[in-house]
Amino acid sequence: MIERDTAAWKMAELSSRSGVPVATIKFYQRENLLPPGERTGPNQALYGDAHLDRIRLIRALIEVGGLSVAAARQVVEAIDSERPLQETFEIAQHSVSEPIDPETVTTDALTHVDTLMTGWHVSADNPGRLAAARVFDTFTGIGQVDAAGWFRRYAAAALLAAEADIDELDARVERAAKAEIVVVGTVLGDTLFSGLRRAAQEHVSSLRYAAPPESEL
Amino acid sequence: MIERDTAAWKMAELSSRSGVPVATIKFYQRENLLPPGERTGPNQALYGDAHLDRIRLIRALIEVGGLSVAAARQVVEAIDSERPLQETFEIAQHSVSEPIDPETVTTDALTHVDTLMTGWHVSADNPGRLAAARVFDTFTGIGQVDAAGWFRRYAAAALLAAEADIDELDARVERAAKAEIVVVGTVLGDTLFSGLRRAAQEHVSSLRYAAPPESEL
Repeated sequence: MIERDTAAWKMAELSSRSGVPVATIKFYQRENLLPPGERTGPNQALYGDAHLDRIRLIRALIEVGGLSVAAARQVVEAIDSERPLQETFEIAQHSVSEPIDPETVTTDALTHVDTLMTGWHVSADNPGRLAAARVFDTFTGIGQVDAAGWFRRYAAAALLAAEADIDELDARVERAAKAEIVVVGTVLGDTLFSGLRRAAQEHVSSLRYAAPPESEL
Repeated sequence: MIERDTAAWKMAELSSRSGVPVATIKFYQRENLLPPGERTGPNQALYGDAHLDRIRLIRALIEVGGLSVAAARQVVEAIDSERPLQETFEIAQHSVSEPIDPETVTTDALTHVDTLMTGWHVSADNPGRLAAARVFDTFTGIGQVDAAGWFRRYAAAALLAAEADIDELDARVERAAKAEIVVVGTVLGDTLFSGLRRAAQEHVSSLRYAAPPESEL
């Protein structure tokens, strides 16, 4: 939530403090990503810490999370709204997920994914359920078999990550802070996990396949 | 690896069997994603199961994995090469990772990420290490604190997934099959995990926050 009573900087200072060009800040305002400053004259407004924080959040969503401007606006609006957190979660999930037509995934794939999630409370149109089913269709479509329980083990890893996500949410007190971490965690979590997985792949494969050091030969 | 001795179909049949338009197949050939068929005349060539499998793999990489044509060509070449699997892994990792200039992440972030990966064998230029450090910079830059050990818990989940990845690799016998699952797992794994995480988020948050059913009121 943008607090208006701490505004103290002109646009040029907001730009230098954030490292974001004035033109980009004005673009964010036109796109309703960033609210106007506190107007102090016909051509001047003042900005404060809340604007600086919001600019950093927008950049995180767009540049690190890869969101479109439209998707970033949706999630920023969800943070500022007074919607229940569950709805904010749904908006964040849909904003960062490629829409998938349920008709394009096979019943077989959905059955397989639902089996992985036995006991989970997941709605039929959860974007992640459809995305996982599409991966299953793709995997089997290229002749791969799930030889080592890959899908089941990913479901176990995903449950650990989701529990960490919700614990981060629980660790915040105010509604606005909870809503922001829902969005940040949803958007940045994919990038964080894929990065750590690549590092872990190098670790695990080097343990198993690296040539032994010469002293052991 | 494309086997030439099973070629039996004309281009039109390859198109109808794969569901991919002839123009797209010819585009794949021009882009060196798909090798030529077995030439049987000045204007005719024959194709077989290996071509069909390769077309499905290319589509999986580009359409589900979101790879560019250039990135897909790199990983397809890595599958067909006789490179050591470790190198194939590195190529797959770099192909699906946004390049990050090490100069753009802070020492603080790298130190934090390296602490998460204490005991892991990870090279300094692993693309995932840099990506995770960038998420750390972004997270702290928007004023977030890691209240519930989010990064550490994601590292634990990533290690589980990486072990599942390498077990899938171990479950294959031939070099070409191992190389293909390296690529497929690297590319599809991100999509699979993010899908399952969204479903798990709904499950965990509904357990904690959903209104109790009326019968329990």
